[in-house]
Amino acid sequence: MANRGGPPGQSLASLGEFGLIAALAATFPPAPSATVGIGDDSAVLATPDGNVVAAVDFLIEGRHFLRAWSSGYDAGVKAAARSLADIAAMGAIPTALLVALAVPDSLPAEWALDLASGIAAECERAGAGVVGGDTARADLVIVSVTALGSLPAGRAPVCRSGARPGDIVAVSGPLGRSAAGLALLRAGWPDHPGAAPALGELVAAHLRPAPPYKAGLEAASLGATAMIDTSDGLLADLGHVARASGVAIDVTTSALDLGDPLAAAANALIPRTDRDSAAATKKILSWVLAGGEDHALAATFPPSVPLAPHWRAIGTVRAGSGVTVDGAPYEAPSGWAHF
Amino acid sequence: MANRGGPPGQSLASLGEFGLIAALAATFPPAPSATVGIGDDSAVLATPDGNVVAAVDFLIEGRHFLRAWSSGYDAGVKAAARSLADIAAMGAIPTALLVALAVPDSLPAEWALDLASGIAAECERAGAGVVGGDTARADLVIVSVTALGSLPAGRAPVCRSGARPGDIVAVSGPLGRSAAGLALLRAGWPDHPGAAPALGELVAAHLRPAPPYKAGLEAASLGATAMIDTSDGLLADLGHVARASGVAIDVTTSALDLGDPLAAAANALIPRTDRDSAAATKKILSWVLAGGEDHALAATFPPSVPLAPHWRAIGTVRAGSGVTVDGAPYEAPSGWAHF
Repeated sequence: MANRGGPPGQSLASLGEFGLIAALAATFPPAPSATVGIGDDSAVLATPDGNVVAAVDFLIEGRHFLRAWSSGYDAGVKAAARSLADIAAMGAIPTALLVALAVPDSLPAEWALDLASGIAAECERAGAGVVGGDTARADLVIVSVTALGSLPAGRAPVCRSGARPGDIVAVSGPLGRSAAGLALLRAGWPDHPGAAPALGELVAAHLRPAPPYKAGLEAASLGATAMIDTSDGLLADLGHVARASGVAIDVTTSALDLGDPLAAAANALIPRTDRDSAAATKKILSWVLAGGEDHALAATFPPSVPLAPHWRAIGTVRAGSGVTVDGAPYEAPSGWAHF
Repeated sequence: MANRGGPPGQSLASLGEFGLIAALAATFPPAPSATVGIGDDSAVLATPDGNVVAAVDFLIEGRHFLRAWSSGYDAGVKAAARSLADIAAMGAIPTALLVALAVPDSLPAEWALDLASGIAAECERAGAGVVGGDTARADLVIVSVTALGSLPAGRAPVCRSGARPGDIVAVSGPLGRSAAGLALLRAGWPDHPGAAPALGELVAAHLRPAPPYKAGLEAASLGATAMIDTSDGLLADLGHVARASGVAIDVTTSALDLGDPLAAAANALIPRTDRDSAAATKKILSWVLAGGEDHALAATFPPSVPLAPHWRAIGTVRAGSGVTVDGAPYEAPSGWAHF
């Protein structure tokens, strides 16, 4: 990526708005379904089944990422993944992004182009392209990504509201890794004395989430009754499903993956004097149950459905309301609240 | 709008994220074509002709509006109008918005709900609804609005690239009023001594642009060859059309509306000692030709097309490149540059 924005150290002020737009447009992949892409007042995309699926998410410096921890590429991957995961969570196929990007004049042009490369890479992983956007100046980096998607022909979207008592709750994608990675970063990673290099995969999971896009389609074709992107934390997100569906959900901790690398991270982060297996389990559970930003998918399936290999059963749907863990309320904070 | 967010003076911090989302959802009109609206991972909209039209625009405090000049309602109208105008400029029908809103904890809840009311009012003027969004905290108000639209059955979008030599250039909607309104605000409106109350319509045009949505559809059905939303300034936007189409465009100043209230504003803002008709004309032309944010529509039509009443012919398309005014280059700065 060296020098695409001009000489090293060039700032966006010297690149100019039209220079930035041209550089972004050259970095972003096109969308196969777009008949009008970047460069007109609006984009136009074909919608084969007569529906469009659409979601928007912010990625704001100081709230959702820090430049001290995230490269431009990291921030780009995260910005794209957050919105693309919302498309997958409907059982839909991501097709295109609109990228609104506000940046400080003083931002190195290379950082902005690295961000574009991260967006491009995540688009390609999801099979989507970039069809439009907006640029502006601001005192901090603000990215607002709108993702668009298509439904397979004749297939209804999988909403949060379809879970039924007796359904199985399953997840695709790892849980707790983003929160563990954030805890490592907060503890000084990579300079924290107890943090082994192998734990870098947790830090990577926080900086560059990798939603299992194809698993969303797979769940829909298997007959998933409800689905959600685990962005707020597993229990908080299952709470959204339980509320929308008018059901209760119970999570079985023995079905969750609490082993390495999460166990190793807990050991690295708990002071030696407090370290015992109960303390470690408590910390790991807080990451897995209440840590946000994993962007795994959680779905409910009729009990007769044989789960595909990418899905792991972790709980059950019952009549009632609320979310419990092993039949009891969970005491720790159960998710993110932005205000 | 009193008290919908709770007691007067309540801040967003006390309303909470889910309280804000519930209040926004209650304010926004639904979209007729949405089968899944606010409250799921993504929205789902029917696209009758098998295409979706999509655009995104930022409205950032300190860049695109000031809380000292704009009420929440004003900012909401402007945020929605900026994006909706991009749909109209394709000859498409606005259908839905996704609203991403970041606000400071300290913002009065009522301001945020006024913003939602402004978005709702502009949606209703355009015939669109709100189908989703995102909320976040930030140190300033940031709105990113994605607008979606449909094309009438069998109709191609009107792009910037279709203007042909011999075409007529026409506009729908007033020009220069937003820039004149901004000049009045900068001069201290409403306390500026020369500024008559009648000039308030110019200030309103700046704070609450009113794009002529139906004129976009009208132009498309009349056979417009190219169209653009005049957000950067008439000459800058015609420059985008000329570049995309590979043509030259000449604007005829005698066809432009340079009279009141623009003439009255120029008189109010030019110091008495410098006031003459040449100075006034120069100032008015700078607003009309180079002032941004009018969100009028500019389009090109084959010369055989009889213009509809909402369209005013203001120039011609020729072979060549670039934009001229009465056959000569225009000397003043010709539009906005964000960097």
